[in-house]
Amino acid sequence: RINGDRLWDSIHEIAEIGPGIAGGSNRQTVTDEDAQGRALFQKWCEDAGLTMGVDEMGTMFMTRPGTDPDALPVYVGSHLDTQPTGGRYDGVLGVLAGLEIVRTLNDLDIKTKHPIVVTNWTNEEGTRFAPAMMASGVFAEQFTKEWAYAKTDAEGKTFGEELERIGWKGDEKVGSRKMHAFLELHIEQGPILEAEEKDIGVVTHGQGLSWTQVTITGKESHTGSTPMPMRKNAGLGMARVLQLVDEIAWSHKPSAVGAAGHIDIYPNSRNVIPGKAVFTVDFRSPDLSVIQDMEARLEKGAKEICDEMELEIELEKVGGFDPVTFDEKLVTSIRDAAERLGYSHMNIISGAGHDACWINRMAPTAMVMCPCVDGLSHNEAEEISKEWSTAGAEVLFHAVVEAAEI
Amino acid sequence: RINGDRLWDSIHEIAEIGPGIAGGSNRQTVTDEDAQGRALFQKWCEDAGLTMGVDEMGTMFMTRPGTDPDALPVYVGSHLDTQPTGGRYDGVLGVLAGLEIVRTLNDLDIKTKHPIVVTNWTNEEGTRFAPAMMASGVFAEQFTKEWAYAKTDAEGKTFGEELERIGWKGDEKVGSRKMHAFLELHIEQGPILEAEEKDIGVVTHGQGLSWTQVTITGKESHTGSTPMPMRKNAGLGMARVLQLVDEIAWSHKPSAVGAAGHIDIYPNSRNVIPGKAVFTVDFRSPDLSVIQDMEARLEKGAKEICDEMELEIELEKVGGFDPVTFDEKLVTSIRDAAERLGYSHMNIISGAGHDACWINRMAPTAMVMCPCVDGLSHNEAEEISKEWSTAGAEVLFHAVVEAAEI
Ligand SMILES: NC(=O)NCCC(=O)O
Ligand SMILES: NC(=O)NCCC(=O)O
Repeated sequence: RINGDRLWDSIHEIAEIGPGIAGGSNRQTVTDEDAQGRALFQKWCEDAGLTMGVDEMGTMFMTRPGTDPDALPVYVGSHLDTQPTGGRYDGVLGVLAGLEIVRTLNDLDIKTKHPIVVTNWTNEEGTRFAPAMMASGVFAEQFTKEWAYAKTDAEGKTFGEELERIGWKGDEKVGSRKMHAFLELHIEQGPILEAEEKDIGVVTHGQGLSWTQVTITGKESHTGSTPMPMRKNAGLGMARVLQLVDEIAWSHKPSAVGAAGHIDIYPNSRNVIPGKAVFTVDFRSPDLSVIQDMEARLEKGAKEICDEMELEIELEKVGGFDPVTFDEKLVTSIRDAAERLGYSHMNIISGAGHDACWINRMAPTAMVMCPCVDGLSHNEAEEISKEWSTAGAEVLFHAVVEAAEI
Repeated sequence: RINGDRLWDSIHEIAEIGPGIAGGSNRQTVTDEDAQGRALFQKWCEDAGLTMGVDEMGTMFMTRPGTDPDALPVYVGSHLDTQPTGGRYDGVLGVLAGLEIVRTLNDLDIKTKHPIVVTNWTNEEGTRFAPAMMASGVFAEQFTKEWAYAKTDAEGKTFGEELERIGWKGDEKVGSRKMHAFLELHIEQGPILEAEEKDIGVVTHGQGLSWTQVTITGKESHTGSTPMPMRKNAGLGMARVLQLVDEIAWSHKPSAVGAAGHIDIYPNSRNVIPGKAVFTVDFRSPDLSVIQDMEARLEKGAKEICDEMELEIELEKVGGFDPVTFDEKLVTSIRDAAERLGYSHMNIISGAGHDACWINRMAPTAMVMCPCVDGLSHNEAEEISKEWSTAGAEVLFHAVVEAAEI
């Protein structure tokens, strides 16, 4: 059994780095706060006897050696970066549960055949630099490193420059590591486990995702003196497209969701009719054909709206992955561990994207989930109980040890 | 007759201060660029023999003495601040036409009975700090100085601090000046004069304006793992309200307009359902009862939308003025001047708000308008011809001289 208090204390200690304004954290990727969080995690890992490798995407690999020099490592982890108004557990739980597993193995003086590598993937959230799960995506050969480096934030800074600036651009070639397995614990970020009163979610699949950045161009002009029939209001065009997105998602109920979280209006002045609106549509479904249908209907419908309003429109896919099926053997070992430990559990499909969704393409991969209060995440009020965190870490512990072999 | 080339050259010289990115200007109120523009204008005025007074709102009053010590001054001017992506003429034409009048009187060695005061009103645009026409509004006792000082920009800086920082907070008590008349030349910012092929708009009335800042609060949560029925999407609520604004404005066609130029979404992250949307609705009409009807329908309709979607809503009036009727005698003198000078002209209602709309409450006031290409304004591509600018300044010259008496 792991030490649930120690894990809980570490979670709340790191949460104070890049503190939020309402109890959560703001430790966005490759900011100074991210660097501070990484340094604390590094210290903890080194105190636990782990040795660090950092790849060119800044991903941290903290290794506990195995007894068999030929055995590939078992990787366990998630991400330490957060949303701008993020919670304390999203990502952090999975990384620090990996550390807690190592601390427990040290306490019990247990050696494993396979090395264990606790991993902190860079830029999982994708807020500052799209897409999400960026470093694991480069690792899994979904994007090139150069493409990721060139991504810009809202201020025009590139990911590559910022990674270098905070001092976490490593030397190790991305994707050069071979894995025996990858395991990730994460909070559900949805309401199902809590509603079903289950301690553990055995994640069998992950929803697919599609991010389309829409740019609607109208004509900046005066809100007072431009007659209604002469207006080309990009903000109004956006309003109609946002409603279309909602209608499309509902039409596939309950197996799809859709919304736009990111919206920028130009020049954003009270007395200027918006000349440009840029926003990102987020569609998800566990069914690939549903995602494809939603994308096609968005493109067709949004173009019709803009044609009718004499607006220009451009659609660009800025992120996406297909639905995921996790490794059957690892999924079974997670289910068996929950059963063995006496935790209530159920199969679940991940609603969010995770680094595990990309790594699944390179190595046997699976995920453990624990509930979160009201299904709330990407909100500073995100909350879990110490019991949930302990249960999740314990199931993860058993699955990691089984994969790493004693 | 004034010197149209000299006026034109001055307009294009000051436009290079705070240059835009597409040929216009970005000289937002109480920025460093605003300070630079003011300094150049001060120099030009002092070269023309004018003496400067600056009030506590930073408004610049540049005086050419009259021959009668008891005669109240004739004020002429507009504003030098611009939109973030503003044109070269909006406001600037009216201030520099005032200067051109003085330069012409100097050239012709003409003295007037009443002093002439060329005026640059602070923060006419209202983009950085709402409301628009802020300093003329304080002058006309519509707002207090303290209220204006406390207004904040998007970064949380106050108007008062910024005015002090750029060095243009004067000592003169706001509104302490008495006026014989106020005259303002401005580009139309709409398409009517050009379409009707008129050189001069004789402005008889000004539209009224109402700015309502709407704050819709939902719940930040994950775009992937939050089921559709559990969402409280403030961005979607905003989209519906934006459509309502458009419907309300069209329902009063052709005597009303409506749009939202300013929209902010929080936390503005691709994978977070918007927890908050803040936007400003701009309604205008020459008919006060129409404005009141639009405000009432917005409040009722937006609340209904938000109730239905389980969103919170707050509406706050952040700017507004009633429709304006300008001084009959001054309006007639403008019309007569246009006629006398052989310019084609028509009566027009100003679609935009102007400093003249506030000053009209304190003193006899009127406005001259000249056409602008395609009615385009609040856009860097704003354009007028040298002929239009010359015609406008010449009519203004005659009206000012008539009011100031030779
Ligand atoms: N887990 C999580 O919030 N990941 C970010 C990527 C996504 O939006 O699903
Ligand atoms: N003329 C002008 O654009 N004034 C700004 C105030 C308004 O929005 O009408």
